[in-house]
Amino acid sequence: MIQTVLSNKILLINEALDYFLPGEKEYPQTINRAMRYSIFAGGKRIRPLLILLTTELFGSKTERGIPPACAMEMIHTYSLIHDDLPAMDNDDYRRGCLTSHKVFGEATAILAGDALLTLAFDILSREGFEDKDSKYVFSYLTEVPAEVRLKVIGELSRAAGVKGMIGGQIVDLESEGKNIAPETIDYINSHKTGALLVACFRIGVILGGGGDDDLERLTACANAIGSTFQVVDDLLDLEGNREKMGKDLGADLKLKKATYLSHFGLKESKALRDHKFNESIKILDYYGNRADILKKLIRFMLYRDY
Amino acid sequence: MIQTVLSNKILLINEALDYFLPGEKEYPQTINRAMRYSIFAGGKRIRPLLILLTTELFGSKTERGIPPACAMEMIHTYSLIHDDLPAMDNDDYRRGCLTSHKVFGEATAILAGDALLTLAFDILSREGFEDKDSKYVFSYLTEVPAEVRLKVIGELSRAAGVKGMIGGQIVDLESEGKNIAPETIDYINSHKTGALLVACFRIGVILGGGGDDDLERLTACANAIGSTFQVVDDLLDLEGNREKMGKDLGADLKLKKATYLSHFGLKESKALRDHKFNESIKILDYYGNRADILKKLIRFMLYRDY
Repeated sequence: MIQTVLSNKILLINEALDYFLPGEKEYPQTINRAMRYSIFAGGKRIRPLLILLTTELFGSKTERGIPPACAMEMIHTYSLIHDDLPAMDNDDYRRGCLTSHKVFGEATAILAGDALLTLAFDILSREGFEDKDSKYVFSYLTEVPAEVRLKVIGELSRAAGVKGMIGGQIVDLESEGKNIAPETIDYINSHKTGALLVACFRIGVILGGGGDDDLERLTACANAIGSTFQVVDDLLDLEGNREKMGKDLGADLKLKKATYLSHFGLKESKALRDHKFNESIKILDYYGNRADILKKLIRFMLYRDY
Repeated sequence: MIQTVLSNKILLINEALDYFLPGEKEYPQTINRAMRYSIFAGGKRIRPLLILLTTELFGSKTERGIPPACAMEMIHTYSLIHDDLPAMDNDDYRRGCLTSHKVFGEATAILAGDALLTLAFDILSREGFEDKDSKYVFSYLTEVPAEVRLKVIGELSRAAGVKGMIGGQIVDLESEGKNIAPETIDYINSHKTGALLVACFRIGVILGGGGDDDLERLTACANAIGSTFQVVDDLLDLEGNREKMGKDLGADLKLKKATYLSHFGLKESKALRDHKFNESIKILDYYGNRADILKKLIRFMLYRDY
């Protein structure tokens, strides 16, 4: 089980998230509690793990990737909080837990999302007078040059922005109830979900000190799985059950969202997944057995419950 | 009139904002239009001007401050879009224009805010392959070291985050309809409005190359006017008229918000403003006539319609 293999890394990520988030007892408590609630509501930490494993591919220490991994998880979590809002997908449950606005109210949920997005960039720009003693930031602050840290901020902000994730989200919203073209479905998948995943690989290469050819190679690998990850999510949405996924099933169908699955059907969706999985693994073969765990994680991403 | 004196700078800021924002005809158009709508809905550009004027205080070129000035205006604008949402202050008008969610709907308004916040950090982390020829980023990319650019991102993200602006916003929301203590009013004013203003001065010093003593001096100056700016806003809210302010008058009183004004009254509020104005001007005296325009801008900020 991949999560057992990676349990030490997941532990480190969770400890570091706890370190970076404001304390529940700090003033003003409500927003701090709301930020923590969503971060610790059962995420699988796939994105942070992708950053750490890609960084390690180049022989770099895991610790170096911790601040970017936490920043990435914060941005992913903020996007879920805002997606779930009544004005957006209007979801009451996520990962088996009540969504932020159901627990804290809409205003606090909006602000908790804003705060997580903002904290991501705070973390990446720290100089760490008081932080330097922490094992969660030590390598990042002492070994990663300012130019590289700027590059990481650039990758993250562009992937999360209007030409990345937010672009995918707005097109997704505008497509509800419409009969949309396959290119639009592909735009949604590659932007709404794919952009951050691609950024994980790219940030890993940049942090690990890979060259331009590595960046090209791992971007291609990421593109293969980036948009497919959403197709798998749609498959789970159809075939899963409430306990396993922890959210209302068939929500996308209820909203009459056009997905790859609803457009091309089950067989074609699974064929796409298999094809893209093989494509990504083939690219990673270049790195020999150093890429073994990364390959396992990708397998978990695309075949989770199957 | 201060706006005439500064018209060249305001023009430069507006041109640069236009340069940084995605085009209205670029896909997906809705979100790009929404971002542009709020940015060009009549803001006075006080925060960007504060950054430029503080940078110049140390003999640095205006152009150097343009990307941070635009990033600051984007963050200020995002905060207004989210503040105006039905779940927050529920305002239909801002600066005489319909608010974002009234024009584009709630979902797009939330995303446009998210996108502006994200774009701010995109701008500050660009390497500018294609940007380098632009006069709006040339000095920033070629003359400002990566370490300094990281510092700017740090100041901005911390001022906008949960220990700054967002902290003020949540306490403000939670205080509605309650009889709150003067310390809480001060927390709201110094965080919700003050934090970004203080960051403007600090970013100016950092960009201009001022020393630690300059940073201390201008932070003190900024603190004096930071929380007072909100008191002035409350005064305008009470005494102004709909045409001048462009928003529903007495909105804060309607929501039964406790403000410095409602707690201490008109006379005390004006006395505070005068006192804090004098304090800030006295600090700036240190810089002789180099600070003349900055002083004028502060006068405009605290006495606008009087």
